[in-house]
This record gives sequence, structure tokens and C-alpha cells, in this order.
Amino acid sequence: MKVTLIGAGNVGWHLGRKLHECGVEVVQVFSRQESKASALAKLTGADFTDRLEAISAQADLYLLAVSDDAIAGVARRLAAGAPGGKLMAHTSGATPMQVFAEAGAAARYGVFYPLQTFSKKRAPDFSQIPFCIDANNDADRELLFSLARQLSPKVYHLNDEQRAVLHVAAVFVNNFANFLFHAGYELLAREGLPFGLLLPLIRETAAKLEDAPPRDMQTGPARRNDRETIQRHLQLLENHPAYHRLYEILTENIHQIYHSAT
Amino acid sequence: MKVTLIGAGNVGWHLGRKLHECGVEVVQVFSRQESKASALAKLTGADFTDRLEAISAQADLYLLAVSDDAIAGVARRLAAGAPGGKLMAHTSGATPMQVFAEAGAAARYGVFYPLQTFSKKRAPDFSQIPFCIDANNDADRELLFSLARQLSPKVYHLNDEQRAVLHVAAVFVNNFANFLFHAGYELLAREGLPFGLLLPLIRETAAKLEDAPPRDMQTGPARRNDRETIQRHLQLLENHPAYHRLYEILTENIHQIYHSAT
Repeated sequence: MKVTLIGAGNVGWHLGRKLHECGVEVVQVFSRQESKASALAKLTGADFTDRLEAISAQADLYLLAVSDDAIAGVARRLAAGAPGGKLMAHTSGATPMQVFAEAGAAARYGVFYPLQTFSKKRAPDFSQIPFCIDANNDADRELLFSLARQLSPKVYHLNDEQRAVLHVAAVFVNNFANFLFHAGYELLAREGLPFGLLLPLIRETAAKLEDAPPRDMQTGPARRNDRETIQRHLQLLENHPAYHRLYEILTENIHQIYHSAT
Repeated sequence: MKVTLIGAGNVGWHLGRKLHECGVEVVQVFSRQESKASALAKLTGADFTDRLEAISAQADLYLLAVSDDAIAGVARRLAAGAPGGKLMAHTSGATPMQVFAEAGAAARYGVFYPLQTFSKKRAPDFSQIPFCIDANNDADRELLFSLARQLSPKVYHLNDEQRAVLHVAAVFVNNFANFLFHAGYELLAREGLPFGLLLPLIRETAAKLEDAPPRDMQTGPARRNDRETIQRHLQLLENHPAYHRLYEILTENIHQIYHSAT
């Protein structure tokens, strides 16, 4: 199976590297930034281009690892060019598969979504990454499924709705949780305390979830309904209106679970 | 140094076990629940009691690992009993050291606060636990400091205010983050999807902080100001008013950091 990678950002980069490592032939890499395209092409032994029109028909699969709002446009241009009729898949959690049909683009299309947060510097452990697969026909769904299985043992068939909900959930546990870590960082920084103090706690908070669901792992003043501590905390946050508000709302939410009358 | 442990809950349990492991003599264990006191006493080779009046004067340090609102009362009764004049320290992040003075309790008192989330089932890695130490005199501060150093290399002198802010920060990164994990759990459950899908993402979100502060690690639609995805997510959350509201507020908070005009 030959793959052409459209996009050499964080997702494209690590996918390309891993596909190559697993013996999948990466034939061409596209990025609007030529330097990125050439760097990933070098890593994967592929050709590269920074022009969509120059993407050749030689691949079996065109993987669109581009930003969500670019998918429709790129798909349309690919379908109108040499790769027309070939299988296309995007790597987005938030984008319905229908984007391809709506773009009047490919006849064969699908989704190849790795559920992980990628950053250029960190090599992710692919064996731990769930892949969410879909396609507009059974044969291509199987094809994408078996490609994903070369990268990770955790491969799932998810439809648009399931993937959309999964993506929202990912925003809560990744983006929003990271914001709370930032709040912790900032609160400590104003006291001249190092963020490193909180890292073991953050690690353990995540690690505990291997044992039991988060509902069973909840601790703290809101869980205990410890009004005195909550009041003291709110006083401490008086000069941080945004954190004060968040503290109130999240405390209320937790309280609701464990102390509601219903 | 001989230690008497007041309280055999999660904190008392793991502290007692670790102190014993490190060769510190645990002479007596108190818990209102005799079965807990006896279990921890057995583990540490100590005596046990379920009556505060039966606590002997034989220890050098009385460690109060009790709930925040019980500290003052326990301290007062200890000071009025056999251990009067001995060093007392509580293990609470949220409670000022002054609780001892206000309780008219001990002449020598301090704080011995391990910053970690403890659960009975998981044996914590003490080498990763920051200990926050304070006392009302230099000699006892040094004494508590060196005791903590037997348990962990990460020991800090923190005053009441610093510890209070650290405790609020811990609520954000532990209690509140765990609630977001619960939100993710619940959103998936309603779609029949397993929470395990999110665990690698949660682990990686925590692990990334070893490389860079959370501010640099922020990703997602709020960071990118991706209005289309945010709207789609809010639509998906229409039947979950609490999560809908949280999504809006957290998105607004993240947006503020990266897209404010100032």
C-alpha cells in the first residue's frame, strides 16, 4: 500500500514517520511550506512538493493531515487533479466524513483519526494511540482498519456522531484539563513557587484512572462538602476573578454529583 | 525519633507504612475506628487505641492525619492530656499552622504536608512526593524537615500563605481536572464508548508537562480560535447543560490567553 501525505504538521509528521517505520511506502509528501515537506520526505524516503497540483496519482491512499477548515478545499482540488478516484481520508476528530461528499470531492473517502495530542518534539508511543476509522464503503473501511492496525493494536470503527462526541470528550480531558494545569502554574508562579511541586500530583491524578473511573477517584473539599475550606479558597482567589469563577462553577458541578438530593 | 500517628485514613495509612519502612519507630496509632487503628498498628509494629485519652507520652512527634475540621479539637485534647508539651504537626494543605495556637493547644507545633492524592489501594511512590514543612520554631522546623527527607528527596519550607495557595492550585490540577475526566467519561458512556479510549490522551497530557509549561502545551479549538468546531461542540452539548456551560467558560478562558488584544 502506497500512501501520500498531505500536510507535514504535528499529526502528519508523526504519522509519516511511523508509517515509514512500519514498512508502509510513503511515496509523496505535500506541505505548503516546502521546508517541512522536504524534511518529512527525507525522513520517509518520499518525494515532496509544495503545490497541490503536483501531487501524483501513484498512491493508493491520500492522507489529509491538514487543519479542519482546509480539508474540504484540499479534497476538492485533489479530486479534480491526478488523484481523482483514489481513496482519501482525513485525520480529524472534529470533521464529519461527509466533508468529502459535500466538497463534491472523492468517490472513495474515509477517516483515519489518531486520538492523541501530538507535538513535534515528543515521539508518541503509537501502541498506546487509539485509531478511529470510518469510510464510505466496506472495502475501504477494512483497508484503513488494517493500515491502522499496522501502527497500533487499538483500532475502532466509529461513525461521525461517535467520533464527534469522542472529540468533545477529548477537549475536556486534554485542552480543558491543560488549562487547569495552567491555572495551577500561574497561581504558584505568583507566590514564587515552582510548577514542579504539582507535577507528581498531576501524574498520579492521571495514573489513578487505570484503576477506577474518575467518579470513584474524586477527592477534595467539593467532594467532601467542606464549606470552610471552599470559603478559604474563594477568599484566596479574590484577586483572580477568572479562577474565582471557575472554582465556584467546578465546585458546584462536583457537589452536584455527590450531594444532590435526587 | 518516635512517632505517634493520629488517624489511619488514606494519608495516615501510607505515611505510617512508609515511616515504618524507613526505620522510623511508630509507637502508637490512634483511630476512632478500632479496626483501622489495629490494622495500621499491626503493619507498623505499634500499639493502637481508639480513645484520644489513651494516647501516651512516649512519642517525640504526634502526627495529626485527621480531617481538616477535626485538627483543632484533637490538638486541644492531646495538649490537655499526656502528650502536652510534645511536638504536634498536622498533614493538611488547607489548614493554617495557627490552628494549634488558636486551639490553645500545643506549645510546639508544625505542618507536615505531603502533596499527593492518596487512595488506600495504591502504594504511592514517596520519592515523587513533595513534602511541605513548617513549624513555630526553628528547631522543630529542622526536625520535621529531616524526618521528611527520610521519606522523600523533595522537601520544602512553605509558610501558611504559600501552602494555602499551593493547596488551591492542587484543587485545580487534581480535583477539578478529575472532574473534567469524569465529564469525558460520561460523554463517552452515553454513546456506549469505553473510557479507555481517552486514557492514553490523559496520560500524554500529563506527561507532556515534563517538557514545557502548560501554556506552551495548549492545543485545541479554543487555542486556535476555531469558531466552527466550537459551535459544533456546543451543539453536541445542548442536552448536557452543565457541560455546555463549562465548555463555554473554559473556551473563553483559553481564548483570553492567546487571543486577547492586550
